[in-house]
Amino acid sequence: MIKKSYKVVSLGETMIRYSPKNFQRLEQASEIEMRIGGAESNFAIACARLGLKAYWISKLTDNPLGHIIAKEIARYGIDVSQVIWTNEYRVGTYYIEFGSPPRPTRVLYDRKDSAISHLEPEEVNWEVIRNCDLFHTTGITPALSTSCHKVVLTGLKEAKKAGVLTSFDINYRSKLWSPEQAKDILSSCIRKVDILFVSEDEARLIFKVEGKDEDIVRWFKKQFSCRVVVLTQKEEGALAYDGKQLFKAGAYSTETVDRVGTGDAFDAGFVYGYLTGDISKALKYAVATAALKRTIPGDIALITLKEVEELVAKGEKTDIHR
Amino acid sequence: MIKKSYKVVSLGETMIRYSPKNFQRLEQASEIEMRIGGAESNFAIACARLGLKAYWISKLTDNPLGHIIAKEIARYGIDVSQVIWTNEYRVGTYYIEFGSPPRPTRVLYDRKDSAISHLEPEEVNWEVIRNCDLFHTTGITPALSTSCHKVVLTGLKEAKKAGVLTSFDINYRSKLWSPEQAKDILSSCIRKVDILFVSEDEARLIFKVEGKDEDIVRWFKKQFSCRVVVLTQKEEGALAYDGKQLFKAGAYSTETVDRVGTGDAFDAGFVYGYLTGDISKALKYAVATAALKRTIPGDIALITLKEVEELVAKGEKTDIHR
Amino acid sequence: MIKKSYKVVSLGETMIRYSPKNFQRLEQASEIEMRIGGAESNFAIACARLGLKAYWISKLTDNPLGHIIAKEIARYGIDVSQVIWTNEYRVGTYYIEFGSPPRPTRVLYDRKDSAISHLEPEEVNWEVIRNCDLFHTTGITPALSTSCHKVVLTGLKEAKKAGVLTSFDINYRSKLWSPEQAKDILSSCIRKVDILFVSEDEARLIFKVEGKDEDIVRWFKKQFSCRVVVLTQKEEGALAYDGKQLFKAGAYSTETVDRVGTGDAFDAGFVYGYLTGDISKALKYAVATAALKRTIPGDIALITLKEVEELVAKGEKTDIHR
Amino acid sequence: MIKKSYKVVSLGETMIRYSPKNFQRLEQASEIEMRIGGAESNFAIACARLGLKAYWISKLTDNPLGHIIAKEIARYGIDVSQVIWTNEYRVGTYYIEFGSPPRPTRVLYDRKDSAISHLEPEEVNWEVIRNCDLFHTTGITPALSTSCHKVVLTGLKEAKKAGVLTSFDINYRSKLWSPEQAKDILSSCIRKVDILFVSEDEARLIFKVEGKDEDIVRWFKKQFSCRVVVLTQKEEGALAYDGKQLFKAGAYSTETVDRVGTGDAFDAGFVYGYLTGDISKALKYAVATAALKRTIPGDIALITLKEVEELVAKGEKTDIHR
Amino acid sequence: MIKKSYKVVSLGETMIRYSPKNFQRLEQASEIEMRIGGAESNFAIACARLGLKAYWISKLTDNPLGHIIAKEIARYGIDVSQVIWTNEYRVGTYYIEFGSPPRPTRVLYDRKDSAISHLEPEEVNWEVIRNCDLFHTTGITPALSTSCHKVVLTGLKEAKKAGVLTSFDINYRSKLWSPEQAKDILSSCIRKVDILFVSEDEARLIFKVEGKDEDIVRWFKKQFSCRVVVLTQKEEGALAYDGKQLFKAGAYSTETVDRVGTGDAFDAGFVYGYLTGDISKALKYAVATAALKRTIPGDIALITLKEVEELVAKGEKTDIHR
Amino acid sequence: MIKKSYKVVSLGETMIRYSPKNFQRLEQASEIEMRIGGAESNFAIACARLGLKAYWISKLTDNPLGHIIAKEIARYGIDVSQVIWTNEYRVGTYYIEFGSPPRPTRVLYDRKDSAISHLEPEEVNWEVIRNCDLFHTTGITPALSTSCHKVVLTGLKEAKKAGVLTSFDINYRSKLWSPEQAKDILSSCIRKVDILFVSEDEARLIFKVEGKDEDIVRWFKKQFSCRVVVLTQKEEGALAYDGKQLFKAGAYSTETVDRVGTGDAFDAGFVYGYLTGDISKALKYAVATAALKRTIPGDIALITLKEVEELVAKGEKTDIHR
Repeated sequence: MIKKSYKVVSLGETMIRYSPKNFQRLEQASEIEMRIGGAESNFAIACARLGLKAYWISKLTDNPLGHIIAKEIARYGIDVSQVIWTNEYRVGTYYIEFGSPPRPTRVLYDRKDSAISHLEPEEVNWEVIRNCDLFHTTGITPALSTSCHKVVLTGLKEAKKAGVLTSFDINYRSKLWSPEQAKDILSSCIRKVDILFVSEDEARLIFKVEGKDEDIVRWFKKQFSCRVVVLTQKEEGALAYDGKQLFKAGAYSTETVDRVGTGDAFDAGFVYGYLTGDISKALKYAVATAALKRTIPGDIALITLKEVEELVAKGEKTDIHR
Repeated sequence: MIKKSYKVVSLGETMIRYSPKNFQRLEQASEIEMRIGGAESNFAIACARLGLKAYWISKLTDNPLGHIIAKEIARYGIDVSQVIWTNEYRVGTYYIEFGSPPRPTRVLYDRKDSAISHLEPEEVNWEVIRNCDLFHTTGITPALSTSCHKVVLTGLKEAKKAGVLTSFDINYRSKLWSPEQAKDILSSCIRKVDILFVSEDEARLIFKVEGKDEDIVRWFKKQFSCRVVVLTQKEEGALAYDGKQLFKAGAYSTETVDRVGTGDAFDAGFVYGYLTGDISKALKYAVATAALKRTIPGDIALITLKEVEELVAKGEKTDIHR
Repeated sequence: MIKKSYKVVSLGETMIRYSPKNFQRLEQASEIEMRIGGAESNFAIACARLGLKAYWISKLTDNPLGHIIAKEIARYGIDVSQVIWTNEYRVGTYYIEFGSPPRPTRVLYDRKDSAISHLEPEEVNWEVIRNCDLFHTTGITPALSTSCHKVVLTGLKEAKKAGVLTSFDINYRSKLWSPEQAKDILSSCIRKVDILFVSEDEARLIFKVEGKDEDIVRWFKKQFSCRVVVLTQKEEGALAYDGKQLFKAGAYSTETVDRVGTGDAFDAGFVYGYLTGDISKALKYAVATAALKRTIPGDIALITLKEVEELVAKGEKTDIHR
Repeated sequence: MIKKSYKVVSLGETMIRYSPKNFQRLEQASEIEMRIGGAESNFAIACARLGLKAYWISKLTDNPLGHIIAKEIARYGIDVSQVIWTNEYRVGTYYIEFGSPPRPTRVLYDRKDSAISHLEPEEVNWEVIRNCDLFHTTGITPALSTSCHKVVLTGLKEAKKAGVLTSFDINYRSKLWSPEQAKDILSSCIRKVDILFVSEDEARLIFKVEGKDEDIVRWFKKQFSCRVVVLTQKEEGALAYDGKQLFKAGAYSTETVDRVGTGDAFDAGFVYGYLTGDISKALKYAVATAALKRTIPGDIALITLKEVEELVAKGEKTDIHR
Repeated sequence: MIKKSYKVVSLGETMIRYSPKNFQRLEQASEIEMRIGGAESNFAIACARLGLKAYWISKLTDNPLGHIIAKEIARYGIDVSQVIWTNEYRVGTYYIEFGSPPRPTRVLYDRKDSAISHLEPEEVNWEVIRNCDLFHTTGITPALSTSCHKVVLTGLKEAKKAGVLTSFDINYRSKLWSPEQAKDILSSCIRKVDILFVSEDEARLIFKVEGKDEDIVRWFKKQFSCRVVVLTQKEEGALAYDGKQLFKAGAYSTETVDRVGTGDAFDAGFVYGYLTGDISKALKYAVATAALKRTIPGDIALITLKEVEELVAKGEKTDIHR
Repeated sequence: MIKKSYKVVSLGETMIRYSPKNFQRLEQASEIEMRIGGAESNFAIACARLGLKAYWISKLTDNPLGHIIAKEIARYGIDVSQVIWTNEYRVGTYYIEFGSPPRPTRVLYDRKDSAISHLEPEEVNWEVIRNCDLFHTTGITPALSTSCHKVVLTGLKEAKKAGVLTSFDINYRSKLWSPEQAKDILSSCIRKVDILFVSEDEARLIFKVEGKDEDIVRWFKKQFSCRVVVLTQKEEGALAYDGKQLFKAGAYSTETVDRVGTGDAFDAGFVYGYLTGDISKALKYAVATAALKRTIPGDIALITLKEVEELVAKGEKTDIHR
């Protein structure tokens, strides 16, 4: 199949993810589910599930936790041969305590001093990016450390130089930095980005953009000259703008099993559709992949291309503003 | 109690049923729930729970899987002494991957070459049927093999000869045969049936019946001369027609835990009500038994007669067309 | 913090609580969840979670089940040093089979002849009550035995004598006594109570009070001269009346994980708010604590004061009559 | 098969059995295994597994716990139609905390006031015993209550009158009575018994018999005129004496998974061998069935006749005095 | 590292493996562990864990069960791109019921009509074998079907032609064929094999070789002209013979957690040692890898090269004849 | 009881402890057991189980993980009111992968930058120590950081000044420091210690003591002027020396379920026996408490005083030199 020929590469941190079962609080748990999760590897796996060839770059401590991460990612056919292994630092972990209204879901990060936060641009084999069709990372990576910020800038630059598409999801994490800290650093990255994923909340909180959703995408387009700006909305619908045309997609009505990783699945669906089609297809595949992800326990979108296509075909979605 | 004196017998395949927990996909599961399931044994067990004396006829491979099936059915007081044991063939299995909207629930059958698909009419002790008040089977059985089709026809004939009531649920399985294949074979069976259970979808897909639900039951009554035609509707309500009168029952509003086996519970509720009362009672008990089944994990309707009666008395149901 | 200085003490029975997982019926369970539960210890723990110093008085059989109960309660900082230990009698147990509509949740008690039902007033160290700010118990305790009734009356009297506030939740259990039996005994207790918690259903069933909710609280106020009468409504909102003013609080919209213990959390929230503020604060904290409890598996309100305060501040609640 | 024609009936108490997993102490368990166990139903099930037709008589409270017991026993083909159901009293429970040397396994009974302890001879349908080949019970039953003692004496008398064999296992439980209490009551039973099962420890503790094992069996034979006296030894071997000849069987070397129920399996193996052969066969089948039971979690000997026969044939056992 | 440059390829069937937990019998299990297992993929994964580059060839049905197998194997870095996918046939399954002495562990296969049994030589991309250093398969593969026998012969021929080493483990499965059937077909394969793995039992049962272990390896060497004959002994030690010298290795004393897959780990350890050293090293790594496998649940040897090397260095093993 | 009047206090780090089940490797685990563990809290809990009043001093991050630790310790009646809470740093975690011979059990620490490693002497309320009878800590604490070393020295000095006994277990952790680093720092601590616990291995590795076990205890006595030197031996027996007399205790033969925490249980048993008796009693209780701990899953010695006393009375132990 022609789509098999597309190659994507992502770079970022993946952590061990712990979650108590059945809405238990952490303090009730005597057994806890152990999985992995990380925005960029979630993206890479979702791409692979959709039929793209995917690579994942990161830095991991050479201990059983690090190997759990690399093996679980490799399981889905992702090339993890470019992971940098070290005997120093630690493997980040995070905890999700699933809530039920009115109790919010809570996330606890224990990721400080992780191996990747010590990653330097010189350690990465940038050749991998040059051989791909698209390079993806998110705003989490530059938030980890100054050296990680340099890594992201280098990656984006290398991609540009080689004519490789770049995509970037803002993915703002308030536990890593403040909106003010984020703004400058993210801006330095976005300037090198072709496809920008930003949520309504992020646009307003970090960049203080006002107005309607349509105004937001126009603002980013103008400000950063990205090729496409994709806005995800509170109601789970989405908007894309390429400077000429506005594309919209309504959200599917879902019964959510686990919403972590939904954004990463969205990005992967968009990238798949964009590489194999156009913005219109991209947006449709993005919301469908995201909707299916929500029904699957864990960070990872264990979907098949066929399932996404069936959902797109069925078109069972609510309209944008409902 | 008077109802204890009624005896029913069913004949069909029962499989080992595997299902991953908590909406996991099969590929995520390291532990999987192991139960049993089969339309006709589900029916027999639900009848026994309601107070009828039930028998179950089948053919099983004499290995641990076969014995799991027979023992689990015996547990509920079903007489399994007429099961034919063989050292050949295999025990069918099936997998349910529970979905959450918009991800559909998926079933994977691994039932080919099961022992019962090699069952011949001569192997069955038909005496059991002659001593019962009702003989039940479903459209799954003739779909399994030519010899199974013969077994069903023989069973229905033996019942007729002995003045034993017969009930039959279309239970169309698209993974076993096409609508075209099903139509002729099912028709040959239905001609010998007293109580026919058919769903709106089956009527339209296999028999190409058009019109309103009322038209459908009239069509079947006319075409096959069944004593009663019972139609289950998309909205989980039901309709029964005996040539003179139309009976209707609205569906209960339910929060479904596991919908597999709902139809079998419906059939059992109907048969119980019919044997101990009339069509009106039958339809009420059918929808109540079905509604309770939906709240119980697994194929089997682990209800009590008292629970069904309480629900029928409470009458907490939505109207037919909502 | 000033609130740390408040001390509350409760007295009552706590049992081992068994519940099958995932909506299974008891007869399906091969593994069953083992927790503890009891109205008065639930109250004490919820108070401790909110920052009050709590004591719990009871009588337990000195075997592993008794120690599970005492240790689990001690875990949350409750002082259990006044528990009376005996080598006689048994530890009560109860079973919850969670239903899903239309199947009701069923509770099976196996609590007869428990140690506390043999508790005599002379065994209790009443000094503890005299040193606290509030003494709480519920209508379950006098329902257990004649000697337990005496214990409650003695406790309420001791509190009154020492100028200690008393709170009392009707907590009617139809499996322990009839409305008629309950009425007289409960009335003898309520006469000594400062803060009375009663539900709409209990008011109508046991005390045959008629009229609107406002009429009910007025009736209790007049009849028993309690300082405050708090009425919990079917729709999970609440009403409080102190003889002068009517206070109302709407219920939060919740997705319930486990509703057992909601009333105890409500009582604790109220008592916390009342001790550290006024009736208006009390009612707000009551409905918020109760709403959060509903989202947590087990009897116990594993909430934090901060979570309750956030919810109160957010005020995301439905209005009273919706 | 000829062996299918033998019928046995047992009478006694069966309880819900709880056990924490993986050597946990009860206080560590948040989930606990829920099974059933009772000497006489264990015996009946083991007999059924070996091919005998078995009946079980008991009295159970009509609640979900009672039905779990009856259904689990029925599962193995035991006829439970003679169980007496009541709405009063309770279902006994017991807890096993598995130890590992030097920590002993501990059992906690919560069986007081169980339904069967209120069983009266008039409630039992003695016809069942008259139609069987053997009636079995154990010393636990008369220990439960005076009325249970009467039931056992009546049962043994009815059996004698009808020429039905009787077997009886001393099964001394120190938590139910003292050796002194046990001696008289057990003696009144044993006088009516054909096959007596007694352990070395019981003989010495209750009956103060001294000397070697051979002396013990001779003493019982002389004292009580049983047809056969079977002695189980500390090293898990066994000795049988019929007044003429001494039979011996060495124990198998086993790696024990769960030793509860071993004695019941021994009894069943003996009875099977005795009914279908002679004392020599009986003893061989007794030690083999017991050895296999030890490898199976739970009270119940989930063995097959074929497995027992293979083990007997293989004869892989340690000699008597090793 | 130099060892990374060696490439091995294996061909054979892998099945879904089900096993009840904690010595339960299958009929007790309500949850069952779901893993994968197959001699040749076990070998490939063990090789990969030791640092070799491994490929696995097979034929799988394109359904969730087939993908579980492929993904789990890919997880360890095995190249599964040469698997042949089909929409026909089924995925084989097998069940292990772990025993405890004297109850034997029992295996139940449900593998008939699996996809690989329909594999034809023309479907395989033999280029893969030509690019590797060693081709491995076992006697299970030719036992599956006539076409599988052809596939094995073709594979061995292709390897020979390309100068690629071949290794072959007899792996006799009595449930697949008789010793007589096996002898001829295995002989046709062994003639093309460089490294033959045979157990003492297999040698005596199938090939009727008599005499001491040393005689057995000499017999095979003479009969089939293999380069090396490796004999695994009952006591878990091993013997290798290359026509000139006899090599011996004693077994480690182990506490076995799961013995399935031990032989495959042995083969992988041998192949690793042979490719990176000589027969002496091969034998040492074989017994060490096998000993470590025995301590790991599941078919797969989740060891690291470092662990094997530490064990080899430590040399904590019992002598050959103990 | 007189023993209740003794008070002990310990100071050190406690971590979240993760362990895969049933000998799984970490990389196999999808669910993992979550407990707590730390030498000094293990000691405090074991003391409390034996009837002493215990306090535990530490520094914890104020997040759910920190509260799990404090609550779990409080559960056993330990006073945790002197824990210092902080919003900075992290809660240490550790992983145990249980091995089976010849695979060793592996521990992975992720404890760097934990809150306690930032503990300063000024933060501790030393008043607690002055009110106790004994202050206990281990060599792990000074290994954590320079400030922790200071804390330990201050604690020992405060205890000395107040005439409070001090006990100290070397507890060498090779993953925290080298023998050379350990020697000086440990020596500075031991000089202030009354009761020293040291293992044979530690004596030889860190202090390079040679000779027989008797020589070792004499060397420490002479070198550091401790009141009692207690040596634990490889075979799990122990030796104590007070300058005048040598005391010996043989080890119990045990089947180990979880050996982590055995040394802490030993220390607690010794301290209990010493405070309530003499060195001879202390040593007996030490080995008995340690033996029982080995049979219990998790770090914590969930024993009762009665169980220890029964074991001491039974005296079922192997002799010293087996």
